[in-house]
Parts: sequence; structure tokens; C-alpha cells
Amino acid sequence: MAVIYDLVILGSGPAGLGAAIYAQRAELNTLVIEKEMVSGGQVLTTYEVDNYAGLPGIGGFDLGMKFREHADNLGAVFAEDTVLRVEEADPAELDLVQAAEAGAGLKKIVGENETYYAKTVIIATGAQHRKLGVPGEEELVGMGVSYCATCDGAFFKNKVTAVVGGGDVAIEDAIFLGRICEKVYLIHRRDELRGAKSLQKKLMEMPNVEILWDTVVDSIDGKFKVSTLNLSNKKTGEKKAIAVDGVFIAVGISPNTEEFKGTVDMDNGGYIVAGEDGTTSVPGIFAAGDVRTKQLRQIITAVADGANCVTSVERYLNEQ
Amino acid sequence: MAVIYDLVILGSGPAGLGAAIYAQRAELNTLVIEKEMVSGGQVLTTYEVDNYAGLPGIGGFDLGMKFREHADNLGAVFAEDTVLRVEEADPAELDLVQAAEAGAGLKKIVGENETYYAKTVIIATGAQHRKLGVPGEEELVGMGVSYCATCDGAFFKNKVTAVVGGGDVAIEDAIFLGRICEKVYLIHRRDELRGAKSLQKKLMEMPNVEILWDTVVDSIDGKFKVSTLNLSNKKTGEKKAIAVDGVFIAVGISPNTEEFKGTVDMDNGGYIVAGEDGTTSVPGIFAAGDVRTKQLRQIITAVADGANCVTSVERYLNEQ
Repeated sequence: MAVIYDLVILGSGPAGLGAAIYAQRAELNTLVIEKEMVSGGQVLTTYEVDNYAGLPGIGGFDLGMKFREHADNLGAVFAEDTVLRVEEADPAELDLVQAAEAGAGLKKIVGENETYYAKTVIIATGAQHRKLGVPGEEELVGMGVSYCATCDGAFFKNKVTAVVGGGDVAIEDAIFLGRICEKVYLIHRRDELRGAKSLQKKLMEMPNVEILWDTVVDSIDGKFKVSTLNLSNKKTGEKKAIAVDGVFIAVGISPNTEEFKGTVDMDNGGYIVAGEDGTTSVPGIFAAGDVRTKQLRQIITAVADGANCVTSVERYLNEQ
Repeated sequence: MAVIYDLVILGSGPAGLGAAIYAQRAELNTLVIEKEMVSGGQVLTTYEVDNYAGLPGIGGFDLGMKFREHADNLGAVFAEDTVLRVEEADPAELDLVQAAEAGAGLKKIVGENETYYAKTVIIATGAQHRKLGVPGEEELVGMGVSYCATCDGAFFKNKVTAVVGGGDVAIEDAIFLGRICEKVYLIHRRDELRGAKSLQKKLMEMPNVEILWDTVVDSIDGKFKVSTLNLSNKKTGEKKAIAVDGVFIAVGISPNTEEFKGTVDMDNGGYIVAGEDGTTSVPGIFAAGDVRTKQLRQIITAVADGANCVTSVERYLNEQ
């Protein structure tokens, strides 16, 4: 006889673990499915986290472990599996009594290893920052290479940094870093910025931001710590190297939502359309953390999403 | 010459301190105004907090202190003052150069001790649970008397509890506790519930929930821990005592927004109308935490609100 969970949570980063903590305390029969061997998501590869209130300056890996231990202590149950899709369950697949008890809208979660059934699903599969794909980038992540100025900018007070990109986020990052750093380069491969005009105006007013137009990063150098960016001008072919302490790559984010296309509504960027209560276009399926449409993708907002989604799950179950 | 802050934060509970942490890391010139001598808000009087991810089972007072220390470490500046109102500043009050630099929409924060000027304001003054006002209630808070089933319900696994109230929250609390506790009494002073019909149906299905109609709590007894509720039937006048391990009082919440009536739009309950980005009806004034319209008032969602509001503040300042 198949187990019918009250809730299956997909992903065990901050959003998934935040949901697991609230679900365990609400005594919902819950399963968390994680495709990696370790929980924590993007936090795991973050060198230091200094903006999760109450745990200043904690290592990213340690924070991920703390979240997981918290969920473990409350008795959360985990499965290692890669989810291929979520669909409406066919009652014929189930024991008749079970199907009747579960009611309409039962979800079937098809994984590589197993198939799971649940009354509700929280999608918390996270997102990934797009990479430049240049030599040195991967090796120096957390040692000067960052994908989030809001997260890591404060570590570069009075230092020299560069931002790579030309959209709203890149401009906001350059303005943000301009207040913190001695000097900021904004490196953009075109000869004009894509970001909002009001942001561009603000950027131009920053005396310590220098824009390098038509420029791409060829490689990032540094021994255990970023020291130099090697650049090319796309129009002139000219090469040059600049000394920096950090580089913030702001060339976009990809949510991990490929498996759910056609299941729930998404925006053009592939984010699942959902407000802070996590409600998606499909009753009983909720979205928490970086996967959903929201203004600020941070650890604290992801954990809060998890809590909010569990409240929405309870309300949904109470209405069935 | 008056100081013109980028941001003044009103209140230093989880929402205000969450905002302070993000504002300090963004190098905004920020002041936090708190009317109490100690930061932390409602958290301070919470006996144990077990749902703030990463810090399982921490004492409420300790958690408040950790938040405050985190903000202190980042250099946050605090003032002890009671804010009377927030209004648009008259440029004539200021030095001409300053007024020009600050631009339009400058806010004036009038406190009992001092007057402050800021480009933006985050209202994070929190809320208070309504009290029953019966003997024993105040003395036994955190020792069996609670105002939040989501927060404290899990501490009463397999125990006997009572919920006092008759609205949606009281019914949701009784259903929530019904899954956790051996037995739950729902004590309501009328002969019918006010909450949604679907919730009432769910409630009636719980075999371990007993509703005591037309009943009020006269007093709460217990020595260092709740043991007995003394009740009266309002129709028959009959008195009786029931043995319980905990009592959850769900008779409403009052947001601390009295001072801002007429300044920003509020709903009928006195909550400031604002979504997750904290934007209110007044440009440059934001609302974070329990004061705003939202589905789930928890520590984690309050801290997340603080972070979200600072992002909104930065966007607002970038557009000026």
C-alpha cells in the first residue's frame, strides 16, 4: 500500500528546510526529497554568511548543517532522489480506501528511484546564478568571486571590486558596492546598459564607479584570493588587466524549475508565479524560496517562505 | 544642523533588527528608535523558540539578545525614544543646502525626546496579543499560557490543552493542537463559532477536540506551570474546573500602529496595508513585521520583512 503524505517538500535548501521545520512542528506527515547527498543548497558553497540574523559571520556550510540538524531534531524524514515530474495522481493506481481518504487533487511525484503520493507539494528546488564560464571563476568562488552583492558586498569595505553585467541587478550591485568600496568597475560587454534609466542616472553620479564598455572578462587570476581580472575590449581587441579584490558576477539567475514546466505557471524567466503565501496556479502545489517570483532572494526570505508555505498547506488541508 | 538619515527604523524587534542588519551591510546611514530599554519585542517574553531555523530550542530572551548583538556588531546606532508621529518635513525647518540635498519627500519623525529627519522610514513597531485579563494569565505566560499555537503547540505533544476564542485563528489553533495533543478543549463564550464553515467542519471531525459553549475563563491556576482552568457557563451560571497543561488564548491581535493612523493606509484591524516588499500608501514609508497585513506573523517572517524593506528602501533611494 502506497504511503500518502500530507506534504512532500522538493529540495532541502533554506526554503525546504524552513518548511520541514514548520511541517514537523505541525505534525504533518511529511517527506523531504533532495537530489544531492547533502542538504543546504546554494548556502553550502557560500564562504561566509553575515546577514542571517542571530548567527553573524557563520560559514555557509555550517549554516546549512545547522538548518538540517534542526529539521532532523524535529524528526523530519528525507529521501535522496531526483524528481522528474509532479502530476495529478490517478485514483486507479491506489488502494480504493486510500484513494477515498486522500480525496481529490492527490499529487503523484515521480522520482528516478521511486514514486511518491502526497496531498500537497512544496517546490523548493532553488536557483543557480549564471556563470561567466571563464578560467579562475569556479576555483575562486567564495575567495573573491561572488554572485550576490547584497550577501557579500560588506566583506569588501574600502576595497576595489568589479561588477560584471549590464542589467538592473548589475547596476544596483555597482551602486550598492559604490557606497562600500573604494572603487568599483562595472564591466559590460555592450556600449550601453540595459537597466532602468533612473538607476543609470544614480550610477553615473557615483564618483568611484568606472564603467568599462564593450569589455569582457577573459579570466580571473589569484592565489587563494582574487587579485586580477584579465579583460578584452570587444571592439578594439585591446587586452588589459585590472587589480581587484573581488568580482561580482551579475549575468542572471536560472531557477531550477525545468521539471515543472507545463505543471505550474511560470514567468518568462522560469520563476514559478507565486506570492509570499506560496500559492501557485495549481491548488495543493506551493512554491518557496528562490524558485518563485519575488524581489529579494536571500537565505532569510527563503526560510520565511518555507514557513509561509506550511501555513498555506494547513489552510488548504483544512478546506478539503 | 540636523542629521538627515537615509533610513530611520521604528522598533527593534525581529523586523526592526532584521532591517538594521541589512541596512548596516548596505552602508545606509541608519538610526533605530526603540521605546523600550531592551530590544527584541515580543520575542523577549517568549519562554522558548524552536522554529527559528538554525537556533533550535533557544530562549526567547537569548534570541532577542542575539539579534541585537548582530546589529550592534555591524555598527547599528540606536536611540531610546517614543515616536509620536511621522510626517512630511517642511524644508523651511532645515538648512537650505541640506533641504536641497535631501530632496522632496523628506520625513520628520517626532519623538518625545527629539525630532529626527530621514529620507525613508520603516515602521516595525510590532503587535500585541489581546489578553483575557483574568487572574493567573500574566503570571503564567511562558509557563503554559501562550498566545501562539504555531509557536508553542509542539511543546504540548500528547498533553491536554485548551484554546480560548471563536474566530478563524482559534479554530485553526484547535485543529493544529488536535493533531499534536491528547485532548483539546475549545472554550468559546457564545453558542456558535465565528470562523469559516470549512474550518468548523474540519474541527468537528477531530475526535479529541471538545467544545465548551457559552463558557468564559474566570482564572488560570498553577504553580510555576498551568494546571487548571476555572470556567463559568454564561447561560446556566454553572462553574467548573478543568485540568490542562496549557492554554492558548486566541482572542485577537492589536498592531502597535495608533501613532500612524491618518499617515499610512490601514485595514480595519489597524494593520498597515503593505505586501512583502513593505511598500505602504506613502512613498518612502515602509512597514515590516507584525504591523503589516500578512498571513503569518512569526519571528522568521518578521526578520525577512526587515530585509525586504531595506531592498525597497534602496530601490526608492535609487529612484530619487
